Amino acid sequence: MNYQIRNILLAVLLTGGIYSVQSQTNVVEDFKPSSVNQPGKEYPMVNSEGRVRVQISAPGAHKVQLDISAVKYDLVKDENGVWTGESAPQDEGFHYYQLWIDGAAVPDPGSLYFYGASRWGSGIEIPAKDQDFYALKNVPHGQVREHLYYSETNKSMRRCFVYTPPGYNHNTEKRYPVLYLQHGGGEDETGWSNQGHAGLIMDNLIAENKTVPFIIVMDNGTWTMSGPPRNRQQGERPAQWPPEGWADGFMKTLLNDIIPMIDANYRTIADQQHRAMAGLSMGGMQTRVITLANPDVFSYVGIFSGGSISTEDLENAAGFKEKIKLVFVSYGSRELENPRTGLGGNPKENTEALKNAGMNTHFYVSPLTAHEWQSWRRSLYEFAPLIFKN
Amino acid sequence: MNYQIRNILLAVLLTGGIYSVQSQTNVVEDFKPSSVNQPGKEYPMVNSEGRVRVQISAPGAHKVQLDISAVKYDLVKDENGVWTGESAPQDEGFHYYQLWIDGAAVPDPGSLYFYGASRWGSGIEIPAKDQDFYALKNVPHGQVREHLYYSETNKSMRRCFVYTPPGYNHNTEKRYPVLYLQHGGGEDETGWSNQGHAGLIMDNLIAENKTVPFIIVMDNGTWTMSGPPRNRQQGERPAQWPPEGWADGFMKTLLNDIIPMIDANYRTIADQQHRAMAGLSMGGMQTRVITLANPDVFSYVGIFSGGSISTEDLENAAGFKEKIKLVFVSYGSRELENPRTGLGGNPKENTEALKNAGMNTHFYVSPLTAHEWQSWRRSLYEFAPLIFKN
Repeated sequence: MNYQIRNILLAVLLTGGIYSVQSQTNVVEDFKPSSVNQPGKEYPMVNSEGRVRVQISAPGAHKVQLDISAVKYDLVKDENGVWTGESAPQDEGFHYYQLWIDGAAVPDPGSLYFYGASRWGSGIEIPAKDQDFYALKNVPHGQVREHLYYSETNKSMRRCFVYTPPGYNHNTEKRYPVLYLQHGGGEDETGWSNQGHAGLIMDNLIAENKTVPFIIVMDNGTWTMSGPPRNRQQGERPAQWPPEGWADGFMKTLLNDIIPMIDANYRTIADQQHRAMAGLSMGGMQTRVITLANPDVFSYVGIFSGGSISTEDLENAAGFKEKIKLVFVSYGSRELENPRTGLGGNPKENTEALKNAGMNTHFYVSPLTAHEWQSWRRSLYEFAPLIFKN
Repeated sequence: MNYQIRNILLAVLLTGGIYSVQSQTNVVEDFKPSSVNQPGKEYPMVNSEGRVRVQISAPGAHKVQLDISAVKYDLVKDENGVWTGESAPQDEGFHYYQLWIDGAAVPDPGSLYFYGASRWGSGIEIPAKDQDFYALKNVPHGQVREHLYYSETNKSMRRCFVYTPPGYNHNTEKRYPVLYLQHGGGEDETGWSNQGHAGLIMDNLIAENKTVPFIIVMDNGTWTMSGPPRNRQQGERPAQWPPEGWADGFMKTLLNDIIPMIDANYRTIADQQHRAMAGLSMGGMQTRVITLANPDVFSYVGIFSGGSISTEDLENAAGFKEKIKLVFVSYGSRELENPRTGLGGNPKENTEALKNAGMNTHFYVSPLTAHEWQSWRRSLYEFAPLIFKN
């Protein structure tokens, strides 16, 4: 065997070519550490096809699997007890995942953790062609503030995160519009700034002068039969989905506690014309119900992967048609390929009918993404420039 | 067998009396979910002795262990493949821990996660008799802000967290003193507000009028041979300990980038008399080195479980003795029982010698705690009222 051939064979073995054989596919060997790994961790990795490769030392284990996008992939053990394996190509953007070790579902110790699927667990980032719009750049940055407050409605302490735009600390005479931005079911008030990158999306849009600066309030919309979860420092009962009172319960807290608290503590323009609400999935459904019932409170409506508003809805929502300046509806393209039940009609047709009825609407489809965060990052990026323009 | 006896036996079995037998100890069966569990999770639990009981479903596993305070405890499997077991009694306060499943070290899926020991991993809270001082109460709350900034010294984006006290948003003419507060080795800029509860400690002290309100800046003091870790959205090489340049590298960034950035963006009183530095462990050692070299920059010095300052140090630190208004040194009592090497002399004797040399000093010992967060929460609680008093 000559040197060249031996080296090629060795390279194939060392770079994991054996897994290609195992999974009977050709895996492109250009894996790099995920951008949301813990400091110093090589694994998990992602390649140019969007495959996720994980690795964990578990010398005593008999079966280890990677569980991502509802598919489990078997890992393979080497002579040192280290298990390695990879998934099929994933869509661009962020995905939750976990490992199974001899029947135990656990977070991957290599990844950072995010709250979704009703748990803190592993996340992975498949580099997206458009990732520049949520990249961390040397531009002026706003701040994301942890805000603790007492809710009279719930007789408990609650927490929200508040994004204040660049310049907020300096222009102390200036007042700003406010977007109330909600997470989805099984997520919480950390989602939009952690995995959603809401702050970075806004910073970049503002730096390019593509949106007016505004405040974003990210609160916890989860609701259970007995009221809101205690979202800090306390155990709580498992959430149902959709949770009892998911719209009405949160609506009371939003209108009675959150909005007055925000208007009292931040330099807001505290009127209907300078207030928007948007949300993803369950948060989109909440946005739909809450804004239909309160067109005197909000001017702009964003529903991301959470249904749409029909002309029939207008009949039971006095003032909505006249007072709302924009109804924005979006979906990931893969959601429309395989529509889930309960969308309440075709969202594109509903939104076109609203436009034909005289409303200002915008329908956006995120290319090649599903019911996941890349759809919602892009939705915020498309929605923000359309609101508070005058 | 009569009813009463049968019920007693059943109760013993159901409440886990079998584990008492396994571990040949009497375990008090008053376990409650930990206060830092994930929402809806029953386990991990803590009892009145301070034992930690964990539980995880792992039907295919052969060996599962709880790893806490450097001791591994075997769990026991039931007929459903659920493993349960508990530790010996732990000290009051916060502890990092992990699970071992057939040789894999993983976070417990039941707990919240905290950055320490150079990883995001599980944490548990043993209720402390004095936990009221960091409890979440219905008092006016400050905010913890995520602040992104560009560092000229490092040519990179960095992140810190900034606590602004209650009233900061309203009293827009008022200016505040600043404490620069550093984490320990293997920790990061999230530690003091997450597991340290720095914000809650300050909110409660201020509500009781026990301290003047001040700003706290919590940055990342970790340093590697090639400079600072990239602390956001990027992988990084494993940290050494103590990291190369752990004091000098951070000192440059603190003096050249962080302090000017804070003074430019917050309503600080930007002079030596209104600036303090404190830190725990490695952060205490950094505080020692940086304040000895810069008595023109800081007035108050807090060293928590991180050495002390000797009269010999004063000889090489021009101006320190004259300009520093307080040297505060603290330890957990268990650290003094079993002193680690490298303390640089007896910290109590060193601090008394400083006092005899004419400096204002304070030596504090946290009762029955080790090199852990309960010692440092208490240290902040003792330190804060002593600074910025005039």
